[in-house]
Amino acid sequence: MKKFEEKTLNTNKIFEGKIINLQVDEVELPDGKIAKREIVKHPGAVAVIALTTENKIVMVEQYRKPLERSLLEIPAGKLEPGEKPELSVVRELEEETGYAAGKLEHLISFYTSPGFADELIHLYIATDLQKVEHPLSGDEDEFVELEEVTLEQAIKYVEEKRIYDAKTVYAVLYLQLKMGMN
Amino acid sequence: MKKFEEKTLNTNKIFEGKIINLQVDEVELPDGKIAKREIVKHPGAVAVIALTTENKIVMVEQYRKPLERSLLEIPAGKLEPGEKPELSVVRELEEETGYAAGKLEHLISFYTSPGFADELIHLYIATDLQKVEHPLSGDEDEFVELEEVTLEQAIKYVEEKRIYDAKTVYAVLYLQLKMGMN
Repeated sequence: MKKFEEKTLNTNKIFEGKIINLQVDEVELPDGKIAKREIVKHPGAVAVIALTTENKIVMVEQYRKPLERSLLEIPAGKLEPGEKPELSVVRELEEETGYAAGKLEHLISFYTSPGFADELIHLYIATDLQKVEHPLSGDEDEFVELEEVTLEQAIKYVEEKRIYDAKTVYAVLYLQLKMGMN
Repeated sequence: MKKFEEKTLNTNKIFEGKIINLQVDEVELPDGKIAKREIVKHPGAVAVIALTTENKIVMVEQYRKPLERSLLEIPAGKLEPGEKPELSVVRELEEETGYAAGKLEHLISFYTSPGFADELIHLYIATDLQKVEHPLSGDEDEFVELEEVTLEQAIKYVEEKRIYDAKTVYAVLYLQLKMGMN
């Protein structure tokens, strides 16, 4: 998986933030020419398809500043330094929804924007949900609203672009496939 | 879709690049507190599920510097300034694969990383492919290798993490659903 490798000649660190870092790498292309690559470094994230005992999908509505609008998404959050995805997803699910999962399975992981960012999302599916009595509270600068939706509603929200992000449209498609709704 | 709106107090432009820009916005949260948001601005992108007359999926292998490895992906590319997605996708398909589509349909659009970036991918499906005699050549700093794969192979490549990015795993899932392979 090193085909067409681009060797780093030097790295210019532009920005170190709370969520992301930015660097510009000067690289040597396979034909010997030089090019620049703008690279966003991200710690990675987890996301979870959480299904209630009534087979509803637990979603959160959240304002997304880069888009200047709110989206309805499956619960997700970035990995803390050194945190394992399977622990992170338990924490995020409890913080954002107040649920604990009786059963938790890793479904798939994928890079969201491999052209300019190294963010890898680990997607899980959680079932046998139970409300936690005194759930962990989330980040104090995060405002989210819970909504439990049927798959039919979720498909409609995709059409209406209320659901509009990669991990959540993937989740909806996965459930359609799993429940034989083709 | 303005629930929990975060009003911009000021914008600090950090970086203007060839592909992305970076800014940090200071925002007022719904509770009146102040927070910072790190925002990557991206022009948006197109991607295309291109099916040959033998029902193979046209994919391209490409080195992804942020990941330091190559991935097998559906053809994609960023929008040029002012370019309409439906024209961009025709251009990218020809440049990367040498194919023109007899039939082209918009399937879905989605944000890849709404937490820190505004990149929106427009996904199309192209059928009735025909080889172009003298295809447009692509960006001179892009090295891609064409591979035409069956859906069964693509599913295997997802498992093997050779296919490993959001738009391509979505495409594979979509074809599974469409072809009744659940």
